Amino acid sequence: MYYNRLFDVDEWTLKTTKLHREHIRLQESITSLGNGYMGMRGNFEESYSGDHHQGTYIAGVWYPDKTRVGWWKVGYPDYFGKVINAVNLAGLRVWIDQEEIDLFLDPLEQFQLELDMKNAVLRHSYLVEKSGKKVKIEFERFFSIVHKEIAAIRIRATNLGNPAVLTLKPFLDGNVKNEDANYDEMFWTEIRSEATEDKAAVVTETIENPFGVPRFTVAAAMGNLTEATLASCESDTLYAGHVYEKTLGENESLLLDKMVSVTTSRDYEKDALLPRAYELLEQALENGYEKLYEEHAAAWHKRWEKADVRISGDPEAQQGIRFNLFQLFSTYYGDDPRLNIGPKGFTGEKYGGATYWDTEAYAVPMYLSVATPEVTRNLLLYRYHQLPEAYENAKKLGLKGALYPMVTFTGIECHNEWEITFEEIHRNGAIAYAIYNYVNYTGDKAYISQYGIDVLVGISRFFADRVHFSERKQKYMIHGVTGPNEYENNVNNNWYTNRIAVWTLKYTLASLDFAGAEKAAALNVTDEERAHWQDIIGRMYFPYDEELGIFLQQDGFLDKPIKPAACLPKEDLPLNQHWSWDRILRSCYIKQADVLQGFYFFNDEFTIEEKRRHFEFYEPLTVHESSLSPCVHAILAAELRKEDKAVELYKRTSRLDLDNYNHDTEDGLHITSMTGSWLSIVHGFAGMRTFHETLSFAPFLPKDWDEYAFKVNYRHRLLEVKVNKREVAVSLLEGKPLQLKLYGEFIHLTNTYTKEYKLS
Amino acid sequence: MYYNRLFDVDEWTLKTTKLHREHIRLQESITSLGNGYMGMRGNFEESYSGDHHQGTYIAGVWYPDKTRVGWWKVGYPDYFGKVINAVNLAGLRVWIDQEEIDLFLDPLEQFQLELDMKNAVLRHSYLVEKSGKKVKIEFERFFSIVHKEIAAIRIRATNLGNPAVLTLKPFLDGNVKNEDANYDEMFWTEIRSEATEDKAAVVTETIENPFGVPRFTVAAAMGNLTEATLASCESDTLYAGHVYEKTLGENESLLLDKMVSVTTSRDYEKDALLPRAYELLEQALENGYEKLYEEHAAAWHKRWEKADVRISGDPEAQQGIRFNLFQLFSTYYGDDPRLNIGPKGFTGEKYGGATYWDTEAYAVPMYLSVATPEVTRNLLLYRYHQLPEAYENAKKLGLKGALYPMVTFTGIECHNEWEITFEEIHRNGAIAYAIYNYVNYTGDKAYISQYGIDVLVGISRFFADRVHFSERKQKYMIHGVTGPNEYENNVNNNWYTNRIAVWTLKYTLASLDFAGAEKAAALNVTDEERAHWQDIIGRMYFPYDEELGIFLQQDGFLDKPIKPAACLPKEDLPLNQHWSWDRILRSCYIKQADVLQGFYFFNDEFTIEEKRRHFEFYEPLTVHESSLSPCVHAILAAELRKEDKAVELYKRTSRLDLDNYNHDTEDGLHITSMTGSWLSIVHGFAGMRTFHETLSFAPFLPKDWDEYAFKVNYRHRLLEVKVNKREVAVSLLEGKPLQLKLYGEFIHLTNTYTKEYKLS
Repeated sequence: MYYNRLFDVDEWTLKTTKLHREHIRLQESITSLGNGYMGMRGNFEESYSGDHHQGTYIAGVWYPDKTRVGWWKVGYPDYFGKVINAVNLAGLRVWIDQEEIDLFLDPLEQFQLELDMKNAVLRHSYLVEKSGKKVKIEFERFFSIVHKEIAAIRIRATNLGNPAVLTLKPFLDGNVKNEDANYDEMFWTEIRSEATEDKAAVVTETIENPFGVPRFTVAAAMGNLTEATLASCESDTLYAGHVYEKTLGENESLLLDKMVSVTTSRDYEKDALLPRAYELLEQALENGYEKLYEEHAAAWHKRWEKADVRISGDPEAQQGIRFNLFQLFSTYYGDDPRLNIGPKGFTGEKYGGATYWDTEAYAVPMYLSVATPEVTRNLLLYRYHQLPEAYENAKKLGLKGALYPMVTFTGIECHNEWEITFEEIHRNGAIAYAIYNYVNYTGDKAYISQYGIDVLVGISRFFADRVHFSERKQKYMIHGVTGPNEYENNVNNNWYTNRIAVWTLKYTLASLDFAGAEKAAALNVTDEERAHWQDIIGRMYFPYDEELGIFLQQDGFLDKPIKPAACLPKEDLPLNQHWSWDRILRSCYIKQADVLQGFYFFNDEFTIEEKRRHFEFYEPLTVHESSLSPCVHAILAAELRKEDKAVELYKRTSRLDLDNYNHDTEDGLHITSMTGSWLSIVHGFAGMRTFHETLSFAPFLPKDWDEYAFKVNYRHRLLEVKVNKREVAVSLLEGKPLQLKLYGEFIHLTNTYTKEYKLS
Repeated sequence: MYYNRLFDVDEWTLKTTKLHREHIRLQESITSLGNGYMGMRGNFEESYSGDHHQGTYIAGVWYPDKTRVGWWKVGYPDYFGKVINAVNLAGLRVWIDQEEIDLFLDPLEQFQLELDMKNAVLRHSYLVEKSGKKVKIEFERFFSIVHKEIAAIRIRATNLGNPAVLTLKPFLDGNVKNEDANYDEMFWTEIRSEATEDKAAVVTETIENPFGVPRFTVAAAMGNLTEATLASCESDTLYAGHVYEKTLGENESLLLDKMVSVTTSRDYEKDALLPRAYELLEQALENGYEKLYEEHAAAWHKRWEKADVRISGDPEAQQGIRFNLFQLFSTYYGDDPRLNIGPKGFTGEKYGGATYWDTEAYAVPMYLSVATPEVTRNLLLYRYHQLPEAYENAKKLGLKGALYPMVTFTGIECHNEWEITFEEIHRNGAIAYAIYNYVNYTGDKAYISQYGIDVLVGISRFFADRVHFSERKQKYMIHGVTGPNEYENNVNNNWYTNRIAVWTLKYTLASLDFAGAEKAAALNVTDEERAHWQDIIGRMYFPYDEELGIFLQQDGFLDKPIKPAACLPKEDLPLNQHWSWDRILRSCYIKQADVLQGFYFFNDEFTIEEKRRHFEFYEPLTVHESSLSPCVHAILAAELRKEDKAVELYKRTSRLDLDNYNHDTEDGLHITSMTGSWLSIVHGFAGMRTFHETLSFAPFLPKDWDEYAFKVNYRHRLLEVKVNKREVAVSLLEGKPLQLKLYGEFIHLTNTYTKEYKLS
């Protein structure tokens, strides 16, 4: 079923004793490390002369690349914003008696590679023979989550044979290219490269751009702790390095700790960057590797304590959810309100921009539960601050109101496929929905009046202008959209889009009432405008088939040839790698939840029978070729007590990258969709809902599991839910008692409430 | 109404006394010259330091440029074939007392620029003062249609003041870039550049490409006839030139005739290119400028004699039709079956490829009448020879049969916008229709069995696979297409596409019967396949509205907000320069004839009332932003006796470039759509039809015209039709008597038949 599994199944680590040279890019993606501030793919420190993808990324540092299009159309954005590959800071080349280790070419013994998720470190080790000398090499590295600007790399070399000269060359190298560059340009230019006896640095600046986007400057500084002798200092364009040498007798070891600090013009004045980087480096060197490591590991343990999901009886599932949480937290832990959750995090370059609707639709629902409200609030404020740009995006398309971008860094749209950028307007609804979700979950109603209403009014104005009135049908319609299912483009009356547009108008009207007349006046919302929105709410057209009793994904859906995806020949999958685009568009196959996405968001507004009918119609047509797809289906399947289906879909979500289900993890991990495994367990298996400010659970236990347990934050409380074959236990770990629902019955929770487990 | 008219209205010339520096690209486009083998924009020979577009093009010489896309989709072609800018062969720099003339900067007196369409030469002249010396400069150039590989440029300089040294530098320059290059690359590399006393040459080769497309080599040789003294020979990378000097006394003149020959690897072995170019050059120099000019002009007079359309009483209309015929014949006169009619001819680079469905839909109907049958047959054979590639194109999309490309040089699709390339499948029908048109017009039925049937079967197999059967509606449908109206993309059941698909299946079945069982067997056409085609013919779905009594452009058309284009604010036009793409797609506005294109092709199958209803519904919604649009409407308007409308649309067609209606003539002329003016007059005003092998006319005379007359070839005959306020005269100029219809009545034509003009 899965495409490629490189690592052993283990609850807390990813381990392998094989160097997967034929899948090196996949291996690099999976072993990525990050600390929210910066991160990198699992590139080796040593030389690796074969094809691979060297990638280091710094959050919020990007470049506006020239766009590619066929023939230009009005409304296209000016540039395509790219996450950019930054200075390679982990590099450390190794020679034994002047012969360099090359992990692509050298035969290795006892190779081991391990991503330790509990402590957030990456290790690899092996024995290698050079000039007849056998040496054991051990590497370890981490990106500190306590001192975000610091990365630490340790190498220990042990000579197992006759005396040999060991040469180590730690370096910084800014000569990096983006894989995802439209015109093969290098995005960096040098400001300074230097190497002195005790330190070295490379200061780089992004090249000029014709779009008026400010340039970024990045300083990386390096210092090394070792007893080896400094043989030379090297510096060259965008490069700085130190060369150390030591002759090792038999069984003698050499240790070198390479410390790197990285500062950027996002945080400091350009002139202060290098001094500040040296200052941070100095502190790190004083602290030393061990101390930094211990602080870092302890901080990760705290994260795990709050958010870990424990599964007994299914190590694959356990490894999957931990890997997802690990990579999510490595990407984003809510520290910086200027940042968002990029679809590839620090693991690759694909998809260019940093911010997608994935954040609101898939990440917010999880961060609400596993982190403090401030984290989600920061994600919401990110959009609030970009409201002027959203107005600009709409204006560029000749429309009123605010259109949040499909892909962005600054709020300005920076992707240019009309069928996506111009047409996937449902993203606007998800941003409104996230406001509702946050307020409803946390109870922070003040957010509406203070920030939310501005965003809601902007989005509602957009929808109200984007609909048209069909004289023929005497209904409002939305033509020319792409729904969440990107395997249909430019369709009319996508049910989900029409639904979320109407929902947004309703929620905005209610929020305006809450925010009060003064705020409404300040936003120039007139009675006519409200009446017009009300008219749209009342007369929106929703495609519906009486015979099947289902809402149609779009007007023409039932005219298509309809046949379950299970009938597709295996060799045609994934369709997007085997079928031409027009064939995909003409088919009934669904990339990701579309109508069912609406059933997830507005779950409380449908009967179980409606849910069943729609699930049973749409799920069999869904090929789940978006990483965002399986979790929504798992949640609904769980609600419908289609346990096997729910578990199958959970597995697909949780091990999507570990097992490379979509054959594309070599490009980077599917970071934003990793929330899906958490959602599948908590919203799915445990049936957690929060509609109407009421917390409720209705758990079931997957057949093969012995037990699972997770914690959620909810309105200043910390709760734990534990489900096993005997019982369901809900415990209040922190905060005041509260009223919640378990299997539809209200309980008053003061400490632990236990109920016999018996699935209805 | 028109956007910009640079040239005076005159029946045989385009003249201006103003150098339009602010519209130089437009001026260059309009004054393009070509001879079917090569051609160039109206660039000046002298230096012009301002922005302009230097462009020389050689038919059939192209480059496969890397494509640009956002995110790659399966089925996209590998490359985007480009017409490429070739060696600048007209260049001739001029100095007066060491000061160079720069037409962008220098003040000029008595400036004159003239495109003489009768003789197909371009001239310009002026007085200029340099170092206090006033000199008159006169240039003239032409591309010989007798010796296709020869271009000739003449300069005469006359000193009007004190003695001055005149320096002339004729040169060849291969340092040219494509405006339409995706990655700013230069497409040429040097093989040889040389300049000796009596001749010079630049031999260039297209750069390598990663697609396995053969490279082209081009040799350009130059020799000059003048009494000035050769001062030096220059050669450099991709460059060769001669420098001549002479001191001119007052009123003394200097003449220099620059002859250029161009050979390509399309015709000769690579090694033979330069010797052959020198040989041709030698002959040209021996002939001398005057002789070459006379032969060339005489050959053009012959063309005009056969094809000229005379209009009395409306010089604008007269100039328009002549300009169109002139540019069409400059682009294509049927000499080389490997060539086709590029949308920009030799006047620009836009649209990349050489061959579009424009050829079959718009050019064939005209060339059938104004040239010998072989010319059209060559255009048909062009597609026949590319049938294997058409099968390949279909296969790439996962479909059976043959899909002719949207844009091509070799038959392989080379444009990559899915909504066009994958979806504009109606183009296939136009290629089938052209076979019918040719056979029906010429009576050459043997063509069907010999070549046509292979193409028809391939196209029918494609359509039969591209349809699907809707279980719901129990009808065959075609989803996911773009019709001729490219302002709707990815629609379902575009009426025109469904109609031409069914028509093709019918015509293929009839042609199979004609070709006989043996041929059918050779093509593996089984009874089952025929029965399946018959089933599709019988059960195809056509969107139709009972209330309006019209066929709908596509399923959802009437759900759109419908409002005549006349209500659009003027500043919004053209829509494609002011409206975002999604807004255009959602609107009811039509770029070019779509349903009405079907009414033109299948004109005999509809009643006049049906035609009226459809015209009156669709024409008001049409913005004619394709240059191919007005003529079809003009023809139908003429048939409906909407004279004013027909004439208005004719004017728009015939003066589209002269008056820059679409604001884009600076990119090059709309070559393929130029047939539209001829079609508007002959199929429109004169009502010529040829359905069921019967020639018929039903002329009317535009109110403002005194008379119009044109000639048509028809089945080995040459006929002339003359229409004025008194009478309609049809004359048989060559060939046997024939039966034809005039205003619905059969007449037997032996010499001239005259009927009183009285419009019904």
